[in-house]
Amino acid sequence: MTARILSGTAIAKEIRKELVVEVAEMKAKHGLVPGIAVIIVGEDPASQVYVRNKKKTAVELGMKSFEYVLPADVSEDKLLGIIADLNANPECHGILVQLPLPKHINDGKVLMAIDPEKDVDGFHPTNVGRMVIGSDDCFKPCTPHGCQQILVRSGIETAGVHCVVVGRSNIVGKPVANIMVQKAAGANSTVTICHTRTRDIAAHVRQGDIVIAAAGVPKFVTADMIKEGAVVIDVGIHRLGKDEATGKDILCGDVDFDAVKEKASAITPVPGGVGPMTITMLMLNTVKAARLAHERAKR
Amino acid sequence: MTARILSGTAIAKEIRKELVVEVAEMKAKHGLVPGIAVIIVGEDPASQVYVRNKKKTAVELGMKSFEYVLPADVSEDKLLGIIADLNANPECHGILVQLPLPKHINDGKVLMAIDPEKDVDGFHPTNVGRMVIGSDDCFKPCTPHGCQQILVRSGIETAGVHCVVVGRSNIVGKPVANIMVQKAAGANSTVTICHTRTRDIAAHVRQGDIVIAAAGVPKFVTADMIKEGAVVIDVGIHRLGKDEATGKDILCGDVDFDAVKEKASAITPVPGGVGPMTITMLMLNTVKAARLAHERAKR
Repeated sequence: MTARILSGTAIAKEIRKELVVEVAEMKAKHGLVPGIAVIIVGEDPASQVYVRNKKKTAVELGMKSFEYVLPADVSEDKLLGIIADLNANPECHGILVQLPLPKHINDGKVLMAIDPEKDVDGFHPTNVGRMVIGSDDCFKPCTPHGCQQILVRSGIETAGVHCVVVGRSNIVGKPVANIMVQKAAGANSTVTICHTRTRDIAAHVRQGDIVIAAAGVPKFVTADMIKEGAVVIDVGIHRLGKDEATGKDILCGDVDFDAVKEKASAITPVPGGVGPMTITMLMLNTVKAARLAHERAKR
Repeated sequence: MTARILSGTAIAKEIRKELVVEVAEMKAKHGLVPGIAVIIVGEDPASQVYVRNKKKTAVELGMKSFEYVLPADVSEDKLLGIIADLNANPECHGILVQLPLPKHINDGKVLMAIDPEKDVDGFHPTNVGRMVIGSDDCFKPCTPHGCQQILVRSGIETAGVHCVVVGRSNIVGKPVANIMVQKAAGANSTVTICHTRTRDIAAHVRQGDIVIAAAGVPKFVTADMIKEGAVVIDVGIHRLGKDEATGKDILCGDVDFDAVKEKASAITPVPGGVGPMTITMLMLNTVKAARLAHERAKR
């Protein structure tokens, strides 16, 4: 059997189409334009590419985008001041601070300063707590939410099945486990979280009907760790070097794709799997933030 | 083999002895007396017993206790006003609102009104989020924290072992799973959460080196579901009726104790297991809240 390829690129496109309609409706009915602010500190070229892509995506969806490109030596106070202004700005519904920040700035303090109602990245503890509790008004962190949407929109049954998460990072492993265990549509899985301290990790992963690989190690999940017919979601992305012929980056994920695809029933590729979902879920969260802000203002 | 009985009563006593010393030191060094406020609405006799016990325990430990016994028809605004006063009161370090509340009062709104720095119950989303992220400044919810302390203080290895949690409530199942998976001492377990939608729950529980039973169903976990030598923590407490001879309540947990104790290597009894830990962890959180408040004030 060769696995069905679950295209995050295609699913992200589908969600964006829906968002274009939702944003147009918000504008027509309420004069409301969802707005996202992206703050970047310093000149890291990769971060600048992300920020440009975020702006481009926001504009394509009919949303407003505010960018703040700050010098690498900006003071923490100055950054906190900008966040305070954005917290107070009714045209800004989502605030994203591009990480990593320079060492003289306290990441945690900055992320805590973002109003949880505008925390579209979903990393503020209040949002994490709401997600764990199962509140409807949380913003699910973008990458874990993207994993869930790939499963749901590919028609993969999650209820009652065993979902094994490899990795316990605050960005992917823990939140995706907490999302999949909820008593909710697209979730309701029995969830196991494995990590660096797990004994016989292969034996655990081999039990997964769904395996979400977020180990942060290239090709960590090998074919012998996968049950015949499992669904495999690969969150990793690693550069292995450049293809000499084409000059393009050679990328791989946390899964040994070529071998695992012969055993799994469905698998996300790298690139084109979870990656394209992340930015789309950020926009979806911003549209949700705008809707919730509008509802609060009406009360 | 008959299991070692893990006495929550004895462990709680040990922790309280430590708290007496810590509270006395705080008083001597900083003139600081940890204070807990307990608010109860209505005349539920069981709740009144809990509140009396909390006061008694606080006083025994050298702490201050403030009780608010409010009539069942108290308005939500009045209750929120009391919480606002307690949030502002520097002598009060912990606030506990005894649940359930009467129907005309919104539980969620009331719990959200408690300052997270005084949320010694650990149910505020901000605290839940901090716990999941692994922040040192969170208040772990009392019952899950009690389960962890029983394991730690009984010398049971948690790192790398498979901990299977039965139940996904916001009060026990989800938080205890999130506690046990942390990269931290007394945790570091591979964690599986099972629940009502789990297929073949017995097969999952049977893999547990540690089983934490929080299903809310009397004697749900039977001997055939337990691996030989497993450690079993029973969170449930149910009244099965009265003993005709003695007139005492017949209690049981979520575990079929008599049969399981012949297979497990260690097990908590009901009563005298997790139960006595809960109130102790509440006091421990209040002492921590006082310490953190004192440190914040110094800055």
